[in-house]
Amino acid sequence: MARKGGFGPHLIVEASGCSRRMFDPKAVRGFLERAVKRLGLTRISEPFVEYYDLGRWNKGVSGIILVSESHITIHTFMKGGWIFADVFSCKEIDQRAFEGLVKKEFRPRRMESNYLRRGKGFRR
Amino acid sequence: MARKGGFGPHLIVEASGCSRRMFDPKAVRGFLERAVKRLGLTRISEPFVEYYDLGRWNKGVSGIILVSESHITIHTFMKGGWIFADVFSCKEIDQRAFEGLVKKEFRPRRMESNYLRRGKGFRR
Repeated sequence: MARKGGFGPHLIVEASGCSRRMFDPKAVRGFLERAVKRLGLTRISEPFVEYYDLGRWNKGVSGIILVSESHITIHTFMKGGWIFADVFSCKEIDQRAFEGLVKKEFRPRRMESNYLRRGKGFRR
Repeated sequence: MARKGGFGPHLIVEASGCSRRMFDPKAVRGFLERAVKRLGLTRISEPFVEYYDLGRWNKGVSGIILVSESHITIHTFMKGGWIFADVFSCKEIDQRAFEGLVKKEFRPRRMESNYLRRGKGFRR
């Protein structure tokens, strides 16, 4: 993919009606590791993944991995089977590959994406 | 602030011409800790902060902290003194307070923000 202006893309994926796999910290950790590989990014941290239960709707798994290109994050919520996943990167990323990975791993019923360009004016 | 529809806000702050303080991992760690307090969020991880030097323009500090509301991230770049800082939260956040903190701590010459609403259809 050709590099466009500025710093790079920020891909926001929001999905709901996901499978219960999203509440398994091991599955979330695996997702982060596979996403880094699939997008050809370079990890600079271990995945950090935490299950939390703050009652009512606020229950799920949060995960993050730092890459030299910036980061990938994911937050999952029991209620409605929601997933919020982000990739922020200084190089172009394959949006469909990331969406495909979310679909394959978490089987959402609905999914929506938003692709932002960041750092207008950033020069390498 | 009144809670609006959906899951919550994602605030994106991009600044350039920042002071050299942005390359001090201790300063970045302190920034994350102060941001969590200032926004009234609840930390669920230690700040993870890493200095990296991948040559040319790709040199700086990356930091992240998980909060029960979602996360705060920051990436700084030597070239042009750029900072990319994000707050993603399931509760309303004080945009001006966060921008004020970035200004106070890193003295940017230019700053721009983008405030997105996420998780349309999310129900608590």
